[in-house]
Amino acid sequence: MSKEITSRQTDYSQWYNDLVIKGGLADYSAVRGCMVIKPYGFALWEKMRDELDRMFKDTGHENAYFPIFIPKSFLSREAAHVEGFAKECAVVTHYRLKNDPDGGGIIVDPEAKLEEELIVRPTSETIIWNTYKTWIQSYRDLPLLINQWANVVRWEMRTRLFLRTTEFLWQEGHTAHATSDEAIAEARLMLDIYADFVENYMALPVIRGVKTESERFAGAIDTYCIEALMQDGKALQAGTSHFLGQNFAKAFDVKFSDKQNKLDYVWATSWGVSTRLVGALVMAHGDDEGLILPPKIAPIQVVIIPIYKGEERKDVLDAKGKELASDLKKAGIRVKFDNNDNNRPGWKFAEYEKKGVPIRIAIGLRDLDNQTVEIVRRDSREKWSVPASELIEKIEKMLSEIQEALFQKALNYRDAHITKAENWTEFEKLLDEKGGFISAHWDGTAESEEAIKEKLKATIRCIPLDNPPEEGVCIYSGKASRERVLFARAY
Amino acid sequence: MSKEITSRQTDYSQWYNDLVIKGGLADYSAVRGCMVIKPYGFALWEKMRDELDRMFKDTGHENAYFPIFIPKSFLSREAAHVEGFAKECAVVTHYRLKNDPDGGGIIVDPEAKLEEELIVRPTSETIIWNTYKTWIQSYRDLPLLINQWANVVRWEMRTRLFLRTTEFLWQEGHTAHATSDEAIAEARLMLDIYADFVENYMALPVIRGVKTESERFAGAIDTYCIEALMQDGKALQAGTSHFLGQNFAKAFDVKFSDKQNKLDYVWATSWGVSTRLVGALVMAHGDDEGLILPPKIAPIQVVIIPIYKGEERKDVLDAKGKELASDLKKAGIRVKFDNNDNNRPGWKFAEYEKKGVPIRIAIGLRDLDNQTVEIVRRDSREKWSVPASELIEKIEKMLSEIQEALFQKALNYRDAHITKAENWTEFEKLLDEKGGFISAHWDGTAESEEAIKEKLKATIRCIPLDNPPEEGVCIYSGKASRERVLFARAY
Repeated sequence: MSKEITSRQTDYSQWYNDLVIKGGLADYSAVRGCMVIKPYGFALWEKMRDELDRMFKDTGHENAYFPIFIPKSFLSREAAHVEGFAKECAVVTHYRLKNDPDGGGIIVDPEAKLEEELIVRPTSETIIWNTYKTWIQSYRDLPLLINQWANVVRWEMRTRLFLRTTEFLWQEGHTAHATSDEAIAEARLMLDIYADFVENYMALPVIRGVKTESERFAGAIDTYCIEALMQDGKALQAGTSHFLGQNFAKAFDVKFSDKQNKLDYVWATSWGVSTRLVGALVMAHGDDEGLILPPKIAPIQVVIIPIYKGEERKDVLDAKGKELASDLKKAGIRVKFDNNDNNRPGWKFAEYEKKGVPIRIAIGLRDLDNQTVEIVRRDSREKWSVPASELIEKIEKMLSEIQEALFQKALNYRDAHITKAENWTEFEKLLDEKGGFISAHWDGTAESEEAIKEKLKATIRCIPLDNPPEEGVCIYSGKASRERVLFARAY
Repeated sequence: MSKEITSRQTDYSQWYNDLVIKGGLADYSAVRGCMVIKPYGFALWEKMRDELDRMFKDTGHENAYFPIFIPKSFLSREAAHVEGFAKECAVVTHYRLKNDPDGGGIIVDPEAKLEEELIVRPTSETIIWNTYKTWIQSYRDLPLLINQWANVVRWEMRTRLFLRTTEFLWQEGHTAHATSDEAIAEARLMLDIYADFVENYMALPVIRGVKTESERFAGAIDTYCIEALMQDGKALQAGTSHFLGQNFAKAFDVKFSDKQNKLDYVWATSWGVSTRLVGALVMAHGDDEGLILPPKIAPIQVVIIPIYKGEERKDVLDAKGKELASDLKKAGIRVKFDNNDNNRPGWKFAEYEKKGVPIRIAIGLRDLDNQTVEIVRRDSREKWSVPASELIEKIEKMLSEIQEALFQKALNYRDAHITKAENWTEFEKLLDEKGGFISAHWDGTAESEEAIKEKLKATIRCIPLDNPPEEGVCIYSGKASRERVLFARAY
């Protein structure tokens, strides 16, 4: 067990921080609640971003960029929206600093006060719909399928690296449609794309569902979500897609004329995933030695480490290592040959384990003689000696096996942690002793939902999309219920 | 001549705005000085960004991400730096809004005042060097070669789409080195990369030089720059690369121990290019019909437009158009087949001319019979009828010819607009009547430089890197000078 990393058993929360920091993904910053994304963490985010971006473009979406600042009055236009975001806004009030004439150093220049305060965007529905007003006149301008990659700021009281930070990176899609049906179909399509990405690239199974009214995005008619399960039995919302109805079109007076020349408000969706996904990845797959990254998005898929015996045939080992690296690279594999002299092999082994590199190859003098290499899988820690001539084939196969194994392991864990509770006692016991998703009846009222949250810190994660109807009674109120919903404690 | 676009002759400045807005690159926003980058403009920026990103990575740089907020006290640590940026800072002073108890709507919550104000980054040297302090201890940690793609905010008084906006997108490289020589070499390397990109992708010739002291980046020892010339004879700074010496290492106490275990401050560079480059591209190549985009970075390289005669063989035309588009796409060409029924061919021709698509292909009924297509080059507006079987070969050849022709045209113009002035009268006359770069003697003092700027609005763009020594007298003061420098009026 790595001495640098707290075990999950000892302190799950500290284990997570250790993985993020010692795995080289991110660092705390001098600014409250903001993090620094380090090169290795950013390379991981780039891989995720590039795949998502391709998926968005393949479904007809285009990228654009809107201002980071939102006039305060815009935020107030949609009542539920401002209610949801006003309490966590970074507000720009001035546009200049100056030297304090009284010698107090650099101060805010009181004469440079803005007439209207600007909010650093917590999300961009308002500034975007204010722009759409000038872009949309007719059904010919629809659908408008736009995405933005951006930084956003929400002044969170409690922050955690990647999972909840004051500033985070995300993408936000904002689409405009002629009909309600088309907008709903778009919101569902994007949910499917998110689920596809999280399951098939991040190797993390998700449940697709719809949020209850009180868990909806501020300003949405319906919020669809994907929910994943972490190794400590807590749920994590991995992405959301909102059907916004005509709420923002009405707030910003965005109308279009249809084929019959009739004016109507435009229908909207918005959808987003963020750097929070990196946190989900860490929590879902890591072990007590460090990160475990799925091959499809790992910045380094294979690391090659030469085992020197002093200077003996060092040049031959180096040449062989470079040759293997070059062969793997030609086969489209992201490989690193680490022949840095400053660190010993044992240190490197531990380092790349911490960084979650899927496959480690070691070559020593005996390997040179036997024309073999030693391969170690990060996830299972299995070790093989493989003829160098078969290397590429083996590596390619192993990378897909690891991808699949990570998904299966997470799926098995998840499926073993969806449990039915028939009454309050069972519900409480499950939450405290087993965790995971608890499938239980709920009477459909915000009151019962709130009471359960208050008492047990469990929230309704979602109503699954394929939920079967089932008569029952609410675990809290005893009132009639027509379907089960999924509860969990969550990040 | 396009009716929608003001001619350069009539009003160069309005012509530029027309190209940006009617070419679909960007739009004004509701936030003072901020713009909306529209999908077509963003696709262009993405092409530019991706090429630059590849060049940075090929030279060993890694991407990372640092907080958007900079504590006010950080900005003050480096004296020249705060002097340069204090006057144009967006300042966050509060972190919450609330409902006005007196019914005034949503107001800033006075109880949510920050202890220390946060500046929205105008550039990130300070927050980054504060982080490097924890990343750098030993020579083994050097060099540190990091780049960040980000948005930055500078509260400019006069703004212009792309050229000068309150918020803009850019990349900023921040590197740390063990020696002064290595840092200078890095700053020069990045200048060469910028020049390579601007010349070979944007088809825009540049002059590499170094800035005078008064034009340096705030906090730099030397600022290297590339300067381009626009069609109205004004210069435009297209990118800068700074040798920062040990200024920021000293301000943030970043030391490293060398191989002899001796402590020294770290040497630094920073370098950046921004969405301003899009503005340069528009101004350098556009004509009175619209944008002209260099093929290497054009989001659409070829547009195919079917010429319908009512419903006659419409399906055959469509099938042929799709086939050609598919063939071109397979050859790696970015192609759009526009068979939108809502618009007539003439409208489409004008539209893609405005958008600067390098090549237009039209196919009509006669083309079907003759197995030909009509090709029009956007830059020269030449027209050919080409056998469909030779299309791909012709298009590939033509795309490189256009790329080369745009560069040559800009180079000829630029070279015809570097003129020597031997005295004040000549200098003034050249500025007013010819424009361009004026090569003239300067006595090396900030006083003369400032006086020339005051009187004629001309600045020293740079001292070219390969500048030959030449004895002479300053055009302003008459004092001795040992080399010529390049003056111009500039964006």
